[in-house]
Amino acid sequence: MESTYEPATEAPAPTPAPTLVLHWLEQSRSHRILWLLEELHLPYTLKVYKRDPRTFLADPALKQVHPRGKSPVLEDNGMIIAESGLIIEYLISKYGKDMKPKTEGEEMKVKYYLHYAEGSLMPIMLLLFVTNNIRSAKVPFFIRPIARTIANKTDDAFAGPDATSQLEFLESQLANSSTGYFVGGSLSGADIILIYPLQVAVLRAGLTQEKYPLLYRWLEAMQAREAYKRADEVVAEQGFGSIVKL
Amino acid sequence: MESTYEPATEAPAPTPAPTLVLHWLEQSRSHRILWLLEELHLPYTLKVYKRDPRTFLADPALKQVHPRGKSPVLEDNGMIIAESGLIIEYLISKYGKDMKPKTEGEEMKVKYYLHYAEGSLMPIMLLLFVTNNIRSAKVPFFIRPIARTIANKTDDAFAGPDATSQLEFLESQLANSSTGYFVGGSLSGADIILIYPLQVAVLRAGLTQEKYPLLYRWLEAMQAREAYKRADEVVAEQGFGSIVKL
Repeated sequence: MESTYEPATEAPAPTPAPTLVLHWLEQSRSHRILWLLEELHLPYTLKVYKRDPRTFLADPALKQVHPRGKSPVLEDNGMIIAESGLIIEYLISKYGKDMKPKTEGEEMKVKYYLHYAEGSLMPIMLLLFVTNNIRSAKVPFFIRPIARTIANKTDDAFAGPDATSQLEFLESQLANSSTGYFVGGSLSGADIILIYPLQVAVLRAGLTQEKYPLLYRWLEAMQAREAYKRADEVVAEQGFGSIVKL
Repeated sequence: MESTYEPATEAPAPTPAPTLVLHWLEQSRSHRILWLLEELHLPYTLKVYKRDPRTFLADPALKQVHPRGKSPVLEDNGMIIAESGLIIEYLISKYGKDMKPKTEGEEMKVKYYLHYAEGSLMPIMLLLFVTNNIRSAKVPFFIRPIARTIANKTDDAFAGPDATSQLEFLESQLANSSTGYFVGGSLSGADIILIYPLQVAVLRAGLTQEKYPLLYRWLEAMQAREAYKRADEVVAEQGFGSIVKL
């Protein structure tokens, strides 16, 4: 499907419209890129891919787009860009006037989160996904308690304490910010990249309103933005659900 | 310990010498930052930290440096920088004249690897570390075969195929490069960031000379560089071993 933007002003566009294609996979890191495209009011073509309902693996057709077969992948006039952090930095640096960092300090902070979200936070969410799978695997009944014990011990030894430490770290970052955003006084690439691991943390890592009130309020505020709601609507039209309802 | 650089030329330094402190943890992502400091002939102060021999967790003293308690962390005149990809980009952009990307295309490729190495490759190495731990955990003898089966099934379902797919992808990237480096005609940030997950892949993911000849040759070439050898020597003086001997 294709969605086009009609500028709200009557002024002529200063540069030719970009030719952006987003390869979007259901229930994935890619939804935040759709959100960003909506925040930036950019025209784009959306190509959607499904997950295997049994294995949760991505549609193998994504390998035709990029050899890693993952999503998101963004095309801009034929240039292929992969890795969420880079896609977000690229879009904001090239098209995101209002979202550009205002100072060098803010730029370093945004870049930090662009690396941290996928380099530190998501790996723990992946581990929790794997131990959840071990816990709920279809195995003979006399194996199940052992599988559960192994999964629990793995979580207790590493994934659980690290997930808690990371959520406490992020909660404290919001406590230090008076604006409700992770960096500066308005929406930045940091908010865009952090939404997916924090949505996953609601599903898998005990991110609740009671334990992490600031993170939860931030998630509610992000999901209430017009651009986020449009991103949800665009994929709902094609039969895809939200990542998490709060 | 402190190591200082004496410039080889007699020309005066054009800018004041930077005040860099690297917080280095044994057997960790941080060794490649030490390597980069040596490649760039920068003066630095090295602060070393040990892992708990039983749990492999980092020295809790690292939490005094950065709330995440991880390594590497770099200080530059008091500014604290975490996340390997950002540290590498920062050092090369600020001090790495010869290592700066030569074109916009090269810049995008280097940035891709700076995100990919920690966002895609390392999470799989972490999963393999966890399943190895499940496999070798001290458990009653009648549990051990079940633990092994669970670890093997987890590897077979996801981590194993993905690790193979990623190593094949990287091998093909080197096959497409005639220079022996991942990006352009000389050492770049891509080589710096990729060395650690690929060293770990030798230990955990079956990266052998037979299966991945180009990756193996690349690893040998990187570890044979004078700067890499100096980085190994600097920590050997303090009693720390290499990450992997090829």
